[in-house]
Amino acid sequence: MIKGVLLDLSGVLYTGDEVLRGALTSIERLDNENVPVRYLTNTTRSPRSAILKKLSRMGFDIDEGDLFTAPVATYNYLSAKNLSPFLLVHPDLEPEFSGLIRDRKDAVVVGDAADGFSYAHMNSAFRLLMEGATLLAMGNNRYFREADGLSLDIGPYVAALEYAADTKAIILGKPAPGFFHAAVESIGCSPGQTVMVGDDVKSDVIGALEAGLQGILVRTGKYRQGDEDQLEGKGLCLDNISAVTDWILEKYS
Amino acid sequence: MIKGVLLDLSGVLYTGDEVLRGALTSIERLDNENVPVRYLTNTTRSPRSAILKKLSRMGFDIDEGDLFTAPVATYNYLSAKNLSPFLLVHPDLEPEFSGLIRDRKDAVVVGDAADGFSYAHMNSAFRLLMEGATLLAMGNNRYFREADGLSLDIGPYVAALEYAADTKAIILGKPAPGFFHAAVESIGCSPGQTVMVGDDVKSDVIGALEAGLQGILVRTGKYRQGDEDQLEGKGLCLDNISAVTDWILEKYS
Repeated sequence: MIKGVLLDLSGVLYTGDEVLRGALTSIERLDNENVPVRYLTNTTRSPRSAILKKLSRMGFDIDEGDLFTAPVATYNYLSAKNLSPFLLVHPDLEPEFSGLIRDRKDAVVVGDAADGFSYAHMNSAFRLLMEGATLLAMGNNRYFREADGLSLDIGPYVAALEYAADTKAIILGKPAPGFFHAAVESIGCSPGQTVMVGDDVKSDVIGALEAGLQGILVRTGKYRQGDEDQLEGKGLCLDNISAVTDWILEKYS
Repeated sequence: MIKGVLLDLSGVLYTGDEVLRGALTSIERLDNENVPVRYLTNTTRSPRSAILKKLSRMGFDIDEGDLFTAPVATYNYLSAKNLSPFLLVHPDLEPEFSGLIRDRKDAVVVGDAADGFSYAHMNSAFRLLMEGATLLAMGNNRYFREADGLSLDIGPYVAALEYAADTKAIILGKPAPGFFHAAVESIGCSPGQTVMVGDDVKSDVIGALEAGLQGILVRTGKYRQGDEDQLEGKGLCLDNISAVTDWILEKYS
């Protein structure tokens, strides 16, 4: 029985700027049946406002409160712990952190900095870690799919800094259980009654399963043949969001 | 009983361009007593010829055949396996690989690329690995000491690529046992009669201990207080190369 749905965005509803076939209809069908849906993304190249604008331009009508992003979770963590961040993030994302103290640098925040992952920036982050700064990461995804192929995501750079400074990052996006649970709580059902749908077998699906949710891997986005073997029978693997919607509407009550 | 000595270079004999106190005298004392010494370095910012020139300028008179470098070990590996490399190395090192076929790119070679560790280069390497290229690394050192502080070495970038492509690198410098053993064999004694001296507790000392050698950590170079705790009583920790030389001359026969 399913009472709530969590959807990853990139690779499930769209790739790059292109809506995936059946995605708009799927969201409409879930909406018509009043299935509670929340959207979870580790995408850290754009602030929440830009993601909402992009979704709206594509034809998805999503409330701000239904969109859970890793940068917002990270901001909340820094704010609650009164930490001052050194930002290894995409320049478009920097304004999201403007409300915080920036004078101490007692936390290193890793987002998808892309070209900002220069040797000089990585070295600055490393030196702060060696002085005792906390390492925070907005996810640990290995890669994502771009128009011209697979590209390195946050995870490899987090692994580099963990290895260099002999430390362990605190993950604040998927697959951190707290990130899934915050979305589940906003629906008001239990983790076991909620299904997480994503194209990243580790971060989306295995992460959700380990947090006590159900999980479905889609064969779109960054999916590569054989990824489902990692599920060891514990999650489902379906072709795309349309097939997922059929499955959900059958189980929803 | 000691019959041979392996010395790391940077952090043991010099830091940056500065000879460490007592280093020249130490090498002279070992030489006067005919102690066989080999030099092992993972430094991959310069070709072997430039390292020899630098040593000579500093006053160290070392034969080319006594200098074991990770790039030379890597070249030999590529050549023996007929592999064509994609080079993620320092530009000064590229000529060392000019003798190899460069058209296929069925191996990714990671050296200390420094500013060459750009997102674009790392991404190219990652895509080759996802297509099945072999990952070769000229060491897995975490960091080294520069004039202005600690800096990221090869290891973190190897960790990043291993994590991204879900693969394991073949290490061709320290702490690979084969690298230590090649130097030991050139002396003609056994690993247990040989002592490795370095400032990197993992790559130099623990690596050597695991390869069956004796190991001494020096408190110079990148050494940080408490590093010796990682030895768990299995290796020695001495102040500097002068103290090491005293120790060696007492045990040499």
